Amino acid sequence: MISAGTTLRQLREQKPLVHQITNYVVMNETANATLALGALPVMAHAGEEVEEMARLASALVLNIGTLSGHWVESMLLAGGAATARDIPIVLDPVGAGATQYRTATAHRLLELVDVTVLRGNAGEVATLAGEAAEVRGVESMGAGLEAAELARAAARRLGAIASVTGPVDYVSDGERVLSVANGDALLATVTGTGCMSSALTGCFLAAKPREPLEAAAEALAAFGVAAEEAARGAAGPGTFHARLYDALYALDPATLDERTRIEEL
Amino acid sequence: MISAGTTLRQLREQKPLVHQITNYVVMNETANATLALGALPVMAHAGEEVEEMARLASALVLNIGTLSGHWVESMLLAGGAATARDIPIVLDPVGAGATQYRTATAHRLLELVDVTVLRGNAGEVATLAGEAAEVRGVESMGAGLEAAELARAAARRLGAIASVTGPVDYVSDGERVLSVANGDALLATVTGTGCMSSALTGCFLAAKPREPLEAAAEALAAFGVAAEEAARGAAGPGTFHARLYDALYALDPATLDERTRIEEL
Amino acid sequence: MISAGTTLRQLREQKPLVHQITNYVVMNETANATLALGALPVMAHAGEEVEEMARLASALVLNIGTLSGHWVESMLLAGGAATARDIPIVLDPVGAGATQYRTATAHRLLELVDVTVLRGNAGEVATLAGEAAEVRGVESMGAGLEAAELARAAARRLGAIASVTGPVDYVSDGERVLSVANGDALLATVTGTGCMSSALTGCFLAAKPREPLEAAAEALAAFGVAAEEAARGAAGPGTFHARLYDALYALDPATLDERTRIEEL
Repeated sequence: MISAGTTLRQLREQKPLVHQITNYVVMNETANATLALGALPVMAHAGEEVEEMARLASALVLNIGTLSGHWVESMLLAGGAATARDIPIVLDPVGAGATQYRTATAHRLLELVDVTVLRGNAGEVATLAGEAAEVRGVESMGAGLEAAELARAAARRLGAIASVTGPVDYVSDGERVLSVANGDALLATVTGTGCMSSALTGCFLAAKPREPLEAAAEALAAFGVAAEEAARGAAGPGTFHARLYDALYALDPATLDERTRIEEL
Repeated sequence: MISAGTTLRQLREQKPLVHQITNYVVMNETANATLALGALPVMAHAGEEVEEMARLASALVLNIGTLSGHWVESMLLAGGAATARDIPIVLDPVGAGATQYRTATAHRLLELVDVTVLRGNAGEVATLAGEAAEVRGVESMGAGLEAAELARAAARRLGAIASVTGPVDYVSDGERVLSVANGDALLATVTGTGCMSSALTGCFLAAKPREPLEAAAEALAAFGVAAEEAARGAAGPGTFHARLYDALYALDPATLDERTRIEEL
Repeated sequence: MISAGTTLRQLREQKPLVHQITNYVVMNETANATLALGALPVMAHAGEEVEEMARLASALVLNIGTLSGHWVESMLLAGGAATARDIPIVLDPVGAGATQYRTATAHRLLELVDVTVLRGNAGEVATLAGEAAEVRGVESMGAGLEAAELARAAARRLGAIASVTGPVDYVSDGERVLSVANGDALLATVTGTGCMSSALTGCFLAAKPREPLEAAAEALAAFGVAAEEAARGAAGPGTFHARLYDALYALDPATLDERTRIEEL
């Protein structure tokens, strides 16, 4: 059953610990989004402790936005520990397609770790699914496939739920496709909002691990509704960014359910 | 003598350089809090320069929030240089108790470096003092000892002033215990506010190095009064966070003294 | 021809990718400033990918604010790739003069990389130009030479455009000197505003690579005008910081040209 409000209520009761190995640019942002929503973020990347930390967590989020050798090894260790305990894992393949190192690392993680949800933009996901895409830095300029079909094809090919975000988001397990039409154009003016959506996907998976397709879509709806609220009265990217945490914190489960625009295609 | 306002005035005249080796999540936040208060932050972690930088500084803040091998070695080098020059040192043992690596590293720093003030939450401090505590990620869920007694016991056992923050903060040198009842619940909704309180403790120690117990309590009072001010009119964690820097910058020494709620137990 | 508005219009059409290898403290801030202005930031520092990423970019920004061995090697690799393709390079020598490691690294980058613009405060630039300067941490406390003459002398000695920021900024190619009198005192209360001005210099160089002296001055004028706008109604450093991104995003080319205070000395 799809109900972002119900999952949010659940999450706030549980206060799940969400272990994030993410990039330097957005660590503060994803931690604050996680906390504002009602979960507990923890950032830890040392080989000495990532397995122990991953085992304490209810979800693991891996993000390759500023990757380097040691960090990739730690992602593999943490991913292995989470896989062994059946802890849901989100992979955010930031910039896959922009450099060979990013593409190869994302493929390596998909191969060696049991990724539950792959959350990326159309260009990143298309690259990993083997479709033609034009990628420019970490920004994707479009994709060869229509996004809904891309999500379905990527999920089939990669054996993970594909969560493709854009003006409308598409989430698929390879069979079903859910579209999420919440959000605001100001999201594209703040760095790390994609990474935040991956972190929140981890939070929702922690609260609803048995229905990961629904949880992934609900996370994007919750983030989108918060963005809609934050945009009202924002004067630009800076004040929108500050108001985004206010809106996540203030999300009311009942209102969230009313405003959620998730549809099954 | 306890007067947060007098120490703040002193600090703004001196503009002490505060060297911080801290975690990736909060570097921007602790630097901005330091600057807003009136001191000068510097972040430097390379083995090649940390000793030289620590010698230029009036206080050193060590924070293990996202630790790894090289960083720990640099903390030891910087700590050694600061110890040799009698420069006050703050240790923030983020997540001690959550993983063995964090607990062991915090113990190692306490052993090898002359820590002036250990600033942590009850769970972290209890772990290091050898008391039972439940720790979950970097968030502490409570402690085995009542916090005031914990501060006193920890200070005795660890040979450093213990600054235990929570709804009410307790600071002890092993004999005296000061409580600080300033602050606002919104502090817990923004990541890194504990780390900021450690950074500001470094600033106050720089301005009042001969009375570290008083300085540590005054720092928490100043931060708490700024938080109280920031909370007025904040719509949630995001706008509170922005207003917190405004409030630190605007702190008036006389008003601060009026609003400080420090008591000796 | 000097017209910050025209260059800004050009930049927003092109949406150039600006590759930044910068410090941990300000990565989020420089990425958001770049995005708010209208360009696309990408942060990548791994030796495995920096050359490939630099070749995709229209400008490269190197910033030594939290340097360490591997990062310096990556800066050299990226700088080499950018030099080979004639991509403009900005160097921000944060803290040069404070430690030998920073000074030596900045010199090494100036020697081995074809730096287009060196953007620093008076103390940092004076140190690198071989002039007497008092440097304290990453904050410069003044310089031995008057700033306009310092810019000219540094440009001649170092073979790069020198962009010396302060209450009034001076930009010189060794012959001509442009002064920029835009900005607001609140800029000094937020960490990373110097780093942001370096990032925006990269953006303007990407849009106007054939006139780097003009582009460097225009970038500072645009940043200064945005700061003037952000300061109106800001209650302190925190709200000023949020409003700064709003103001960069809202910069109107025509108004920018009216308010630009660039003069040739």
